[in-house]
Amino acid sequence: MTETADAAEPLSDLSRLCIHTITTKPWPIEEAIEKYAAAGVAGITVWRDALKDRDAADIGETIRNTGLKTVSLCRGGFFPARTERERRFAIDDNRLAIEQAASIGAPLVVLVCGAAPGQSLEVSRGQILDGIAAVLPDAEAAGVKLAIEPLHPMYAAERSAINTMAQANAACEALNHPLVGIAVDVYHVWWDDQLETQVRRAADRDRLFAFHVCDWLSPTTDLLNDRGLMGEGVIDLPRLRRLVESAGFRGFHEVEIFSERWWAMDQDHFLKQIAAAYLRHC
Amino acid sequence: MTETADAAEPLSDLSRLCIHTITTKPWPIEEAIEKYAAAGVAGITVWRDALKDRDAADIGETIRNTGLKTVSLCRGGFFPARTERERRFAIDDNRLAIEQAASIGAPLVVLVCGAAPGQSLEVSRGQILDGIAAVLPDAEAAGVKLAIEPLHPMYAAERSAINTMAQANAACEALNHPLVGIAVDVYHVWWDDQLETQVRRAADRDRLFAFHVCDWLSPTTDLLNDRGLMGEGVIDLPRLRRLVESAGFRGFHEVEIFSERWWAMDQDHFLKQIAAAYLRHC
Repeated sequence: MTETADAAEPLSDLSRLCIHTITTKPWPIEEAIEKYAAAGVAGITVWRDALKDRDAADIGETIRNTGLKTVSLCRGGFFPARTERERRFAIDDNRLAIEQAASIGAPLVVLVCGAAPGQSLEVSRGQILDGIAAVLPDAEAAGVKLAIEPLHPMYAAERSAINTMAQANAACEALNHPLVGIAVDVYHVWWDDQLETQVRRAADRDRLFAFHVCDWLSPTTDLLNDRGLMGEGVIDLPRLRRLVESAGFRGFHEVEIFSERWWAMDQDHFLKQIAAAYLRHC
Repeated sequence: MTETADAAEPLSDLSRLCIHTITTKPWPIEEAIEKYAAAGVAGITVWRDALKDRDAADIGETIRNTGLKTVSLCRGGFFPARTERERRFAIDDNRLAIEQAASIGAPLVVLVCGAAPGQSLEVSRGQILDGIAAVLPDAEAAGVKLAIEPLHPMYAAERSAINTMAQANAACEALNHPLVGIAVDVYHVWWDDQLETQVRRAADRDRLFAFHVCDWLSPTTDLLNDRGLMGEGVIDLPRLRRLVESAGFRGFHEVEIFSERWWAMDQDHFLKQIAAAYLRHC
């Protein structure tokens, strides 16, 4: 599906490849760190569930000792709620996420912003802005950035009221803070005909903080856990990589795949497939 | 979820209620016609699968004899394809759909426009325009209107490259023909923050041809067949009805629900639930 005129320069090594721990969910984080590093992967994004029963600072040190770079912590967010009490709880949880990010040495927390079923998306978007504003002093104190990740419209009911790059840009502009930017995940935005304009709008204000890759399978059989490995689906990944890179993005290419199918396979085999698919299809 | 300021006038009867035959899929069309009419439903939208092994003109006469109004035929479209041969086949199939619509007395064919996995959405959108243009003489000859239905972005890979009201409006404007308009289905567009602007853009050019209702369940467990009955989900239906009606729409409110859950139930019970939910939640 690569259109030559739009293609980015081919990738020749793994020096910008990062993997999200959720991608290889069956591995405990210690094994993920060891295996990623041994495979020549350059970066790791740590999901908070992988830190359960661990000391975050210890995990950070383990990561640094392998030479891997900690790219981000996933995830904060989920600010909207019907009650004040729940919204305060969400803010406290985001403060904890920022602390955890600082402890493991992650410069960035990715925000899945949240939505509350039965509450209008407009109200939820207001609560998202309020929530981020409430934790910004913590982010400043920790020196940790926050990336709003626009989520596919199929997650609007309960996962995020921010569903397009245009809405993510509007949120960033409302907050207008150098620590607040955007995580672009191809899975969520590949269909959007405003993508190019909106990526440039974000880049022009130095707000392109992260770039996540995977693929959209056709057909997709599950709303959550049927993502494809790069090249298995319909997304024109070279075009999207060129889009963010021509706008100035120089960060990692983060592989974030939720897939019951891949999780059921041997994860060593999967890791080899990730590296090969990355070089071939991104 | 109704916000009073945005609410439409409450519905007091079934005089604008239309049901899609697919909604009560277990019923043969003859039974659907009889049961809808007996329940006081005013209109019926006929799905083409329901016409299998029937004479379309006979079905049209049966519908008229009950006093039901035939609102539309579902569905044409699926124009994009990788080969010229497949695209020609799609055009022929749409000619057949227009003929069937004329035979049953439906003034409108709803178009699920199509997409071709592995082909860019831009190319597919061009093929959609070409396909509609190719069948417009047939639509003119038959006096049948064509409604582009923007489909939720989760269907972009294989069902429609037209995923927003803005794209549907752009397609209508490119074709610029009085027989080409838009079918607004709340399931596909409820999340879109451009909806109000885009509904007005369509209405200002007399292009609001149809209005489909159901609900978005939270959580949704299947991408295709887990739609909710009105009131079961998160969509603010009175707000959306008011939006189209304040823009001038005076057509039917068409209940189109694909649901394995409801299809597994007694359909007489379901029909009662539809009428009650319509009066209460639309």
